[in-house]
Amino acid sequence: MKPAIPANTVERLSLYRRLLEAWLEKGTTSLYSHQIASMACVTPAQVRRDLMAIGYTGSPSKGYSVDALEESIGLFLGSDRVRKIALVGMGNLGRALTTYFTSRVPRFRMAAAFDTDPRKTGRVIAGCMVYGIEEIPRIIPAEGIRTAVLALPADSAQEMADRLVNAGIKGILNYAPVPLRLPADVFLENRDVTASLEKVAFFSGQPREGS
Amino acid sequence: MKPAIPANTVERLSLYRRLLEAWLEKGTTSLYSHQIASMACVTPAQVRRDLMAIGYTGSPSKGYSVDALEESIGLFLGSDRVRKIALVGMGNLGRALTTYFTSRVPRFRMAAAFDTDPRKTGRVIAGCMVYGIEEIPRIIPAEGIRTAVLALPADSAQEMADRLVNAGIKGILNYAPVPLRLPADVFLENRDVTASLEKVAFFSGQPREGS
Repeated sequence: MKPAIPANTVERLSLYRRLLEAWLEKGTTSLYSHQIASMACVTPAQVRRDLMAIGYTGSPSKGYSVDALEESIGLFLGSDRVRKIALVGMGNLGRALTTYFTSRVPRFRMAAAFDTDPRKTGRVIAGCMVYGIEEIPRIIPAEGIRTAVLALPADSAQEMADRLVNAGIKGILNYAPVPLRLPADVFLENRDVTASLEKVAFFSGQPREGS
Repeated sequence: MKPAIPANTVERLSLYRRLLEAWLEKGTTSLYSHQIASMACVTPAQVRRDLMAIGYTGSPSKGYSVDALEESIGLFLGSDRVRKIALVGMGNLGRALTTYFTSRVPRFRMAAAFDTDPRKTGRVIAGCMVYGIEEIPRIIPAEGIRTAVLALPADSAQEMADRLVNAGIKGILNYAPVPLRLPADVFLENRDVTASLEKVAFFSGQPREGS
């Protein structure tokens, strides 16, 4: 099933929502599309298109109600309620991501982590229970988790992704430095840290150190 | 100055190179474009276009020499030599990224980190010296660093980015959950972790927990 809304639109909506939350906290009640656009570093036309895509129509003369708009985007994204996430790989990055979501983004809950290291399994790390990977087929359906984060070395990423998909995972955020082969109905977002840094370094036109 | 080569091409070249390195280690000497394509999860035509973009022409009948191709891509990306990177924000994510690059990607060197926390400054953390942010204008030019990673909360990201750009930084990999406004000659890659996870969760069609 192809999603009807582009992935980039969803990413921008997520950003708008976080900007709106910050405005709400400051007591702002209404905003024009050009103000949202300015903070989000996109054009006002883009903001209006994105909001139309989720069926939201503000009052162009008085601006959008910050409160109502934040709620509408939240409802659309499903982020009005807590979502359970699984993590595979409780290394440095896995721990940093878990700590980050637990402390800063309460609408995501790292409900279960999996690791092959017996020194980590059976313990709570960064607020999240760490299970052995053989528990994936039991825990994922039992917890009703459909989204997973992979924070693993390249060599085990595909195998772990296959196990997750077999257990019912429908979306993977992949920090492993390797592409993954997944069924068409599983949403994949690759966030290869090395490729990102190599790209930025390339376009920085960086002079090179002597070898 | 606009780069002549698309950013996505650079990202794929970085991936091809890492795949070629892995093949070299296994003793593979030649490969066809379809083999590279299969591992990289792209089409063979894409591989050939990307290699033509950097002026590399293999022998279609015998395949590409793994050794020569790996070297050519490395030369093109400038990743044949060590590149210095600056980090701003030695929190959990900053530490994880530093450890990752130090242990796994020796061609990037975290040459200096900056943080506002006096408990962190003046110390070596994860193998990287941590300076106060007031040292940015001195250290960045002195070390000749042109690429920086931001691993910071949203509220200080723009200010730190401005300081980095004023000190000579030409490319920023931004993990802060906020867009940045930068001069046109500075390359920016946003890697907002929350937006990525929200997107994946959305397309996972995740059933929601009771609130």
